[in-house]
Formats: sequence, C-alpha cells, structure tokens
Amino acid sequence: MYLGLDIGGTTIKAGLIDEENRVLESRKVPTVIDNLEGFISKLTEVICDFQKSRPIDAVGIGVPGLRSSKTHVIATSPNIPCLANVNLEKMMADQVHLRVVTDNDANAGAYAEFVCGAGTGLQHLAYLTLGTGLGSGLILNGSLYTGASGYGGEFGHTVIDPNGRLCACGKQGCIETVASGTGIVTTARDKLRTGRNSRLNEIAPPLTAEKIYDAAVRGDETAREVFADTGHWFGLACANLINLLNLEMIVIGGGVMASGEFLLGKAIEVARHYAFASSFADCQIVQSRLWPDAGMIGAALLARDRA
Amino acid sequence: MYLGLDIGGTTIKAGLIDEENRVLESRKVPTVIDNLEGFISKLTEVICDFQKSRPIDAVGIGVPGLRSSKTHVIATSPNIPCLANVNLEKMMADQVHLRVVTDNDANAGAYAEFVCGAGTGLQHLAYLTLGTGLGSGLILNGSLYTGASGYGGEFGHTVIDPNGRLCACGKQGCIETVASGTGIVTTARDKLRTGRNSRLNEIAPPLTAEKIYDAAVRGDETAREVFADTGHWFGLACANLINLLNLEMIVIGGGVMASGEFLLGKAIEVARHYAFASSFADCQIVQSRLWPDAGMIGAALLARDRA
Repeated sequence: MYLGLDIGGTTIKAGLIDEENRVLESRKVPTVIDNLEGFISKLTEVICDFQKSRPIDAVGIGVPGLRSSKTHVIATSPNIPCLANVNLEKMMADQVHLRVVTDNDANAGAYAEFVCGAGTGLQHLAYLTLGTGLGSGLILNGSLYTGASGYGGEFGHTVIDPNGRLCACGKQGCIETVASGTGIVTTARDKLRTGRNSRLNEIAPPLTAEKIYDAAVRGDETAREVFADTGHWFGLACANLINLLNLEMIVIGGGVMASGEFLLGKAIEVARHYAFASSFADCQIVQSRLWPDAGMIGAALLARDRA
Repeated sequence: MYLGLDIGGTTIKAGLIDEENRVLESRKVPTVIDNLEGFISKLTEVICDFQKSRPIDAVGIGVPGLRSSKTHVIATSPNIPCLANVNLEKMMADQVHLRVVTDNDANAGAYAEFVCGAGTGLQHLAYLTLGTGLGSGLILNGSLYTGASGYGGEFGHTVIDPNGRLCACGKQGCIETVASGTGIVTTARDKLRTGRNSRLNEIAPPLTAEKIYDAAVRGDETAREVFADTGHWFGLACANLINLLNLEMIVIGGGVMASGEFLLGKAIEVARHYAFASSFADCQIVQSRLWPDAGMIGAALLARDRA
C-alpha cells in the first residue's frame, strides 16, 4: 500500500491509496514552514500514524518547489523556504525506514490525472492548478516530463506580458501574475480603483478569489469581468501550450477552478482563437477529476511506479 | 544512401547523406509554390537526377508547414499554399518508387542537430531558426517531439506580447513578429520613423536584416539597437522555453543567426535574467553547427531512422 503526501504552504494532506488508485483513508495537518526540524518531525508523525494501522510499501511526497532528478535535492521552494537544498527523500527515509520519493506537487497532480483522472488513456497532457499561484506539470509521450534535471513543466513563470505586473519571483509579466488566485484579487483591485459601483466594495477584507466568485454568482458585473479577464489570460496561455506541445488535454485544477465556470468558458474561447486550428482540434480543456486530491494521489502513485 | 530535401519558400535544397551523416553531394533548385503539379514534377526531377548517379534507399522531405503524423497529410503550409491537405509522401512515393518520409522543416533541423550537430549526445533541446519567420523543433527525452498529431514543436506563434504587432498568422504579438528577419526589419523601420540619424536611412530599398547587420558591423548605433532589441525578445522567449522544458541546449540557426553576434549575447543575458537559475544553469544557448544544411540533413536522417 502506498502513502501520498501533498505539502501545501499551510496544510499537509496525506492519504493511503489502494490497488485501484482509490483513497482509502486521508487526513490533514498544518505545515511547519519556517524550520526544517519541525517540518521533518511533523511529516514523520503523520507517516508513523498511518504505519500503525496498515503496512506501507513506500511514501510519495509532492512538494511546492523544484526538485533535482539527479541529486534528489530540492533546489528551491519559495513557499517553504526551509526545504531549499534539502534531500527530503533521504531525510524522511532515515526517519521512517521506508522508500521515499519526492517530486514537484503539480507534477504529482499531472501524474494522477494521467493514471486515473481526467486524462486516463491519453499520451500528452498538461495539468494546471490555479491556486494562490499557478502550478503545472506535463505528461508527454505517456510519461511525466521532467527535463534535464527534473525542473521541467514549470509554466506559471512564463512571461506573457513583458509590461505586465511584477511577480513574486522577481520578474515581470509571468502568467501567474494574472492567472491565479492572487492575480484575480489584483485584477479586482485594479478595477475597483476606477471607482466602480460593485458589491466587491462592500466585502470585508481581505478580498479573496472566492469572495469575488460569490459576487460573480450573484450577478455582480465587475466580479464577472474579473473572471472573464482572467479567463482571457488563461486562454492565451493555454493556446501557447497547445501550439508548442500539440496536447490532447489541458486539465485544470486548483481552488480557483472549483469556482471556475465564469473563467473556463472564456479561456476555451480565447484558446480557440489563438491556437492553430489543427492543434486546437486535438485538445480538450477540462476540469480536474481528482481535485483537491490530485497531488496526494499522484505522490502515492509516483512512490509505487518510480521504483 | 539517403536523400534529404529541404523545401523553402524560394529554394529547394537536396543532398545525399552518407553513413557518417556527411553531405556527399547537394544541389539547389527553385521552388514551385503556386501549383501542385509543377511542385511535384520539380521534386521528381531532382530526385531522379540523384537516382541516376547512386542507389537511394529512401527520401526525406522537410516542408514548411504542419504535417499530420496520423494521416501524413500536410494540414497547412502558409508559404507553399498548394501543399495544404496534400499527402506529399504518397504522391512522391508513387512518382519515384522509393520510400518517402516528410516532416516539418524545423523538426528535421532539430533532428539533425541532435544526431550529428551541436546537440549530439544530449536528450533535451530546442532548435530555433531565425529566418524570414521563426521555425522550431524539439528533441525531448532523446527523440523528436511531435505531440498528439505531429503538430508539436511550434514556438514561433507563441504570444509573448498581447499588445504587440500583428502577425502574418492573423494573431497579435507572436514571438515571430519580433524575433525573425521580418521582425528585425519592422523594428528598424519603427526606429527610423522617429527621425534618427542612421546609415539605415541611406540604404537602397528593400531594407533587409542582412543590410541592417552590415550597418551594425560598421558601427551604426540604430542598427545595433535593432539587434539588441531583437536579442531581448529572443532571450525572453528562450527563458520561457527553458523554464517549461528544462532543456540542455537551445540551438539557433537561420539566415539571421549567420550575422548574429549582436543578437546572441543579448539573448543569453536576458534568458539568464528571466529563467530559473537552476534551469538556466542546465542550458547552453549556441549557434547551429549544421546551418544552412540542418533541414536537408535532418530530412535524410528521418528517412533513414523512421522506418
């Protein structure tokens, strides 16, 4: 039996996956982000708890960051800084005496959608998660694409608007600055600054993508425009991926997509306009089937399949 | 022995490749672009000429367009419109009684650089050709990446500036509008419109990337700025590719790169700024080793290796 962990900036989700790729049992605990010792001991506690009830063959861990496929060290993890330059696989294996596999969290999500989610049976797909940021993973020619050193599949920091917003990564105009939860909030603030009459003015701070979605559902024009604008950028980004990789599917997950009907329709319309007709015809753009468990399931599957 | 043909908008280059991937013999003839019958009979003539002197095992043809790997039909070819919806492989095989393989011309170039050019021994590379437009092909995990239907690897029509120039493809802000021979000429015209004092004002029309390069070599500031601006856009585009695909190499060919020292240095500097440090560290950005024969050699190699 395989245990998958999806490490988020605030929460760790852990679940046992059975032979039919179903979640048998899962739990959530808060993430320790500021010290490695605390982080490791929290993970050890979670894994040992599962070990008490069932025999575990291996553990997979999805981390928000770039992981080297050569050294297995996490090169960088902006949201959990204590993980930078750490070989988490080795540290955890020493703690729990099990085989431990790590990968980027969105790579794990992509693998799950490919093995048992929206993209089952396909060979070429991208998995994009619209959360606080924009995560991504690629399945190409029927396997998880990781590139020269395991850092491949990063799409959120593609520059799509050189005169655009400053990004948390230090660059300007990354797709993540417009197509993400943070981007949605910034787009709403930009619109409100022009003095519009909108329900969004009455929302108790902090403004969130979820609250903007609620306003959109209730018919607020500004909130709907925010999602349409976001969908436009996201569709443009999808067209670029479709042209470059001639994908069969783009699977969209993440907290923002749970409230995504205002966004997805616009994104598909814009992607159709910008992509080559022949390449667009090959590609479905769909919602995740495994969200919010895709990363956790994928991590367990990687532990099983990456021997 | 394998014969490779590289079909350009104005010239067909054809060459025989020996067992050590060297060009034994080659020739150039003008392309017929406006009628299929004329196009086919010109190709037949060239191939039959080679057949007279040596036994040919198969013929590879690189075409500027999107070729379906499922039906082998060319879906679209903007520069040679008579090829649209044609199964060139079958038509030519019927004419010359040899096995005939076709692919996108830049895909063929990528394959050549991978097998016996700048990228020999690598697993992940992009080949970009800066000519009139911007052609591209990808080698991922040690093989030519073509995607779901053979249309993959198209990077020139990635939107990088949504408010940018109109593109020949009908969209706006494609990389090709700034990083190509045509883009270089447009950038120069834009600068001259502001009334600058430059050698470029004295050049007999038509203005070309080559003439702008000559002016840059002679120290013309405006011409140098044109190449620096182009290098900036090209570097941004390379950073996007490096982040998404964690490549080991970007190989740059094409007529513009033959005059490229003003462009390449800037491109590398900008790519370093925009790409993740860990991914940039994996990737060399270099000039093609096989240009201007990469497409022709690659077409022959595809005929040999794609049985």
